[in-house]
Amino acid sequence: MRRLRMGMIGGGPGAFIGPVHRLAAEMDREIELVAGAFSSDAARSREAGAAYRIDPARAYGDVAAMLAAERSRKDGIDFVAIVSPNHHHLPAAKAALASGLPVICDKPLTATMAEAEELARLVEEAKLPFAVTYTYSGYPLVREARARIAAGALGTIRKVVVEYPQGWLAGGAAGKQAEWRIDPSRAGLGGCIGDIGVHGFQLAEFVTGLKVSEMLADLGSVVPGRVLDDDCSILLRFENGARGVLLASQIEVGEMNALRIRAYGDKGGLVWKQETPGTLTLHSLDGRSELIHAGGSQLGPDALARTRTPNGHPEGYLEAFANLYRDFAALLHGEGAPLLPGIAEGLRGMRFIATAVEASRNAAGWVKL
Amino acid sequence: MRRLRMGMIGGGPGAFIGPVHRLAAEMDREIELVAGAFSSDAARSREAGAAYRIDPARAYGDVAAMLAAERSRKDGIDFVAIVSPNHHHLPAAKAALASGLPVICDKPLTATMAEAEELARLVEEAKLPFAVTYTYSGYPLVREARARIAAGALGTIRKVVVEYPQGWLAGGAAGKQAEWRIDPSRAGLGGCIGDIGVHGFQLAEFVTGLKVSEMLADLGSVVPGRVLDDDCSILLRFENGARGVLLASQIEVGEMNALRIRAYGDKGGLVWKQETPGTLTLHSLDGRSELIHAGGSQLGPDALARTRTPNGHPEGYLEAFANLYRDFAALLHGEGAPLLPGIAEGLRGMRFIATAVEASRNAAGWVKL
Amino acid sequence: MRRLRMGMIGGGPGAFIGPVHRLAAEMDREIELVAGAFSSDAARSREAGAAYRIDPARAYGDVAAMLAAERSRKDGIDFVAIVSPNHHHLPAAKAALASGLPVICDKPLTATMAEAEELARLVEEAKLPFAVTYTYSGYPLVREARARIAAGALGTIRKVVVEYPQGWLAGGAAGKQAEWRIDPSRAGLGGCIGDIGVHGFQLAEFVTGLKVSEMLADLGSVVPGRVLDDDCSILLRFENGARGVLLASQIEVGEMNALRIRAYGDKGGLVWKQETPGTLTLHSLDGRSELIHAGGSQLGPDALARTRTPNGHPEGYLEAFANLYRDFAALLHGEGAPLLPGIAEGLRGMRFIATAVEASRNAAGWVKL
Amino acid sequence: MRRLRMGMIGGGPGAFIGPVHRLAAEMDREIELVAGAFSSDAARSREAGAAYRIDPARAYGDVAAMLAAERSRKDGIDFVAIVSPNHHHLPAAKAALASGLPVICDKPLTATMAEAEELARLVEEAKLPFAVTYTYSGYPLVREARARIAAGALGTIRKVVVEYPQGWLAGGAAGKQAEWRIDPSRAGLGGCIGDIGVHGFQLAEFVTGLKVSEMLADLGSVVPGRVLDDDCSILLRFENGARGVLLASQIEVGEMNALRIRAYGDKGGLVWKQETPGTLTLHSLDGRSELIHAGGSQLGPDALARTRTPNGHPEGYLEAFANLYRDFAALLHGEGAPLLPGIAEGLRGMRFIATAVEASRNAAGWVKL
Repeated sequence: MRRLRMGMIGGGPGAFIGPVHRLAAEMDREIELVAGAFSSDAARSREAGAAYRIDPARAYGDVAAMLAAERSRKDGIDFVAIVSPNHHHLPAAKAALASGLPVICDKPLTATMAEAEELARLVEEAKLPFAVTYTYSGYPLVREARARIAAGALGTIRKVVVEYPQGWLAGGAAGKQAEWRIDPSRAGLGGCIGDIGVHGFQLAEFVTGLKVSEMLADLGSVVPGRVLDDDCSILLRFENGARGVLLASQIEVGEMNALRIRAYGDKGGLVWKQETPGTLTLHSLDGRSELIHAGGSQLGPDALARTRTPNGHPEGYLEAFANLYRDFAALLHGEGAPLLPGIAEGLRGMRFIATAVEASRNAAGWVKL
Repeated sequence: MRRLRMGMIGGGPGAFIGPVHRLAAEMDREIELVAGAFSSDAARSREAGAAYRIDPARAYGDVAAMLAAERSRKDGIDFVAIVSPNHHHLPAAKAALASGLPVICDKPLTATMAEAEELARLVEEAKLPFAVTYTYSGYPLVREARARIAAGALGTIRKVVVEYPQGWLAGGAAGKQAEWRIDPSRAGLGGCIGDIGVHGFQLAEFVTGLKVSEMLADLGSVVPGRVLDDDCSILLRFENGARGVLLASQIEVGEMNALRIRAYGDKGGLVWKQETPGTLTLHSLDGRSELIHAGGSQLGPDALARTRTPNGHPEGYLEAFANLYRDFAALLHGEGAPLLPGIAEGLRGMRFIATAVEASRNAAGWVKL
Repeated sequence: MRRLRMGMIGGGPGAFIGPVHRLAAEMDREIELVAGAFSSDAARSREAGAAYRIDPARAYGDVAAMLAAERSRKDGIDFVAIVSPNHHHLPAAKAALASGLPVICDKPLTATMAEAEELARLVEEAKLPFAVTYTYSGYPLVREARARIAAGALGTIRKVVVEYPQGWLAGGAAGKQAEWRIDPSRAGLGGCIGDIGVHGFQLAEFVTGLKVSEMLADLGSVVPGRVLDDDCSILLRFENGARGVLLASQIEVGEMNALRIRAYGDKGGLVWKQETPGTLTLHSLDGRSELIHAGGSQLGPDALARTRTPNGHPEGYLEAFANLYRDFAALLHGEGAPLLPGIAEGLRGMRFIATAVEASRNAAGWVKL
Repeated sequence: MRRLRMGMIGGGPGAFIGPVHRLAAEMDREIELVAGAFSSDAARSREAGAAYRIDPARAYGDVAAMLAAERSRKDGIDFVAIVSPNHHHLPAAKAALASGLPVICDKPLTATMAEAEELARLVEEAKLPFAVTYTYSGYPLVREARARIAAGALGTIRKVVVEYPQGWLAGGAAGKQAEWRIDPSRAGLGGCIGDIGVHGFQLAEFVTGLKVSEMLADLGSVVPGRVLDDDCSILLRFENGARGVLLASQIEVGEMNALRIRAYGDKGGLVWKQETPGTLTLHSLDGRSELIHAGGSQLGPDALARTRTPNGHPEGYLEAFANLYRDFAALLHGEGAPLLPGIAEGLRGMRFIATAVEASRNAAGWVKL
């Protein structure tokens, strides 16, 4: 079977997440990057194209040009990956969908809630595959955690704690990656909440299979001069009455990317940590504690199919990301990818962000989600 | 110098914390248990006295009897340790102080706020030494953390996260230890908040040297039929504007006693975990991470003086508890013990508990502390 | 710059390391798999080619056919990757070199010492690039460890301990991967010593920059019926007089791939563990302990250039493997790759294996290497 | 029941292990230090006595004086604890036994093999209780490990690895504790091998229930000017054919007291680490990994009876040491203490040390033990 051909929007010189998408998309050789509108500056787009080693003729200076030119090729792109800052997501996705192309889009879905709702309508009308790269749901042991909870290993879920501490925005300037994330005109509504808080939110719902029904948000802008939030503390209630806490921060000096989820039911508990992603700890009410290893014989089929090496051979962030692209390829091949986050999860994430920002600004206490 | 003579109130057959106090008090041979009103049932008190191997004549059936008898001995007790359930603290302390004896009392200070205020008045009037055993402030690396922060290693504190997850009350009955803790008539106002939440609160203020100024509390009674809280999520503000989170739970299946504190300033961060208490991790803004080991050469004098063995020889909960008694002995010898929690910390802990319970019940949002 | 074109030898259906080479080679988009003699069974080779999604015409039934056909193409392969069982390495490499192609070869270099020496001569005569994939030397923090030691951070090295425990061959049959590894006709001289012991040996010399001068080997065949060794304990002396220990085992139930290296000098020590590869611990004689994080600001240039994501985003085995291919691409582009293991390291590894097997069989005590 | 009365020999000003014995002996209030010949210098012995807060009249200037004076008291000592440097063990034990007193003695048993054999004869003749404080066999999870292996959890043991890395003797002088340990006239035959290697040896036999039958020892004196060994690598064979490795070093900079034992059979494996003593990891051949927690519900009776607090409340070195004294008290009360190391284990440890030193000096290869 031939490889699917990807066109990238965004990911120009200096970008972080563009190269990650490229690498992840191609990891399993089901997809190939062949074209890109990497930058709205044509020279910079060509520079990026050269770095990605694609055909120079297919490094375009704008999205419309890429879509038009690729449509006219026999070997034109099969889908578009959107990896630009948040405020570009809607126009890029709109153009791609209008051009009849499936889309895989980085999170958060858009910069504003209104954009998100518009995009959701467009996706519904277009009836085209659309995925959102909530990276952490691609980890094998996150899939395993979800499967174990779905199978009742924890009983009825009572409590969920998700923490996402980072420290890289604790100081002043931190380079290009920091720049747009702290600028409302590019990042949109949320700072920390949109950059990492939404990952935690999606992970909590993904792993437990439960929806958050209410929340109480306390967002702060801690670093002097910062406009957007950089520290978030959120209390949660889930639809079944379970209690939850979601903490995200980018000013906790020394923390790297320490996303951690813990879920507890009336029969057991589990813990997974992103920085040591190859181990899932399961506890049961009778006092037993078990370690589940990525690549090991205790894994269920979904998780096992998403590890590439035997246990003890660490896989990490890039492999988790690649698992989302593997799902996306399956989706495009019509095989289905029930666990791949789509437009609904993208929209829901935006609702979470918007609700948190609004409720926190108004000190609104508990609000519905 | 002779050993100080301790009389214990509470700690009868089946007790957990009584034997811990005895062991901790005697660990450094500065104190000796010689008498006790271990139970209000005289036979049970004698049984306990035999288990502690004290003179049978000094195992009393009530507090008043002990105080009277000991006062009349030349080798009578020098102080009283109160280790009974919370609702006994006030009457026991009142009697001891009236008898002219210093008191060391388990936490929380009392069962109710009114009792706490009465006790504070009594201590003030009595002008006698009074300590409250917030165990975790006795750990060497907690002392080190406090010293480092006081010396400016973290710069201005911006964020504090304290978590205290336990799982032992996730099921139904869990023996005598559980029984009184979940009974309002014995535990008082708070369940989880009074049993462990207050430890987290005291630790946060102790380590950072900052006072909590406001809080938003969400307390739940998760296990069916439970009256008192067993799961607490609390947002904090400190007097300097720093943000904080305090989580405590007793229904997180598989969690043992996983108290953890993290503090972050504009120059650095630190992390300490009670279950691996021999390591303190320090981060600085420039990306360096350092491990500080209990008993190691990087310790300051206060922490070093509170380790009994070289690094790599694990010390734990009992040694931390003993450090409080070492401080208490110093206090009684007139040497001072500035870091030993006293009546002010006891009263403050009760205010924290009462405020949390009240604010949560009324869904009061942010309230002053 | 165009991507280098790789032809693979071995890596047919059911193979483990073939897909790893493919993935690693392509990760940074500098190399592309375009052809392969994946199996000596033509149908199986075609099956593998389809799985790799290469042009069906370029999935060959034997090495000679691949080399001939590819030479005649304008877009023929630029180099050969040898990923077949050990006894195929020499004939495959010989053919590739004779065809004028650079070679990258899995370890151990060959099945026997005589083959290794022959191959070394051939490489010398051919004057073509030749690399050996000692995977673990591709980890960023292994590079960092080497750089720190080279810069004197540990002073004079006195002691090196390398341990490589696995458990997957503790039981009876363990599938295709086990089968050839325990068969002398395919694996060659060594079992565990050739499969993983040689990794430990190479790592020890790589990290310390020191050569082993003498060794005392004790190899056992523990599982009943096993012919080759499955458990190795080896004492070492390095050229500077430093002492060393190398342990490798494949019968330690529950161990996954727990390669660990520790080196100690007169000024400091360091520890790195493959299963948590993102952290390097450095100790100094004055009692300080520092954590070095992959992707963090404390890394030297070589290690930093070999991480693809910021710290806290775990990279692992596949990324380390890809770092070797990145070096190999640089070598082919004439940019040099001084740390990429070559024929000398491959030959030295074989000498280590042969010496260990021989010395152990003869209970020869200390022998020169 | 009254407390047993202990007389200490050694443990004068500046001692490390004396205060540890005192604390451990008294921890459970079954024993009380009442007398001591803490130093052969009478003034220093009195100084130590004051620090221990015993009756000044019972701090003696020599062993004979203590034994004579205590024998004449109604409340005289019930047993003697020998905590002085190794070369004092024999004369002290000899005198105590002659005086009719049971003895608990620090390890190694004596300074030389001849002394050990003499002492063994004396103990046999005296028919008095005699214990040797191999500390690590007092840890609850070491007891649990032993019980699990005895119950067959690992099947037939095939491999045992014991490592004991320390770094505190990597530099030059390191205070009084270092001084006598590196002086042959006081430490005896062995340096590192006698100070910590013998702990590892005893632990290996204790946990597995197997005897070492052969060994190959490589002992080095790494620090310039050192006479005794400071780095030991030893290969082992057990009586059932199992293979083993014992590593001990005191020059591994940054290592604290990182004793670790791993045992593997044909059905499972287990790992225990002294620096995190509250967790035992169990692996089974089918891929499951379980964590056993000190104080938890998965413990067998022997281990459970040797933890004083619930799981999550760390206990460590001092509590492990106290468990040996608890056993010793049981022995003196005639209740038996089958797991308490006695004269046989003491003698066996000396044989191990003597054999290792002799075999290493002569490069004797494999020798019988």
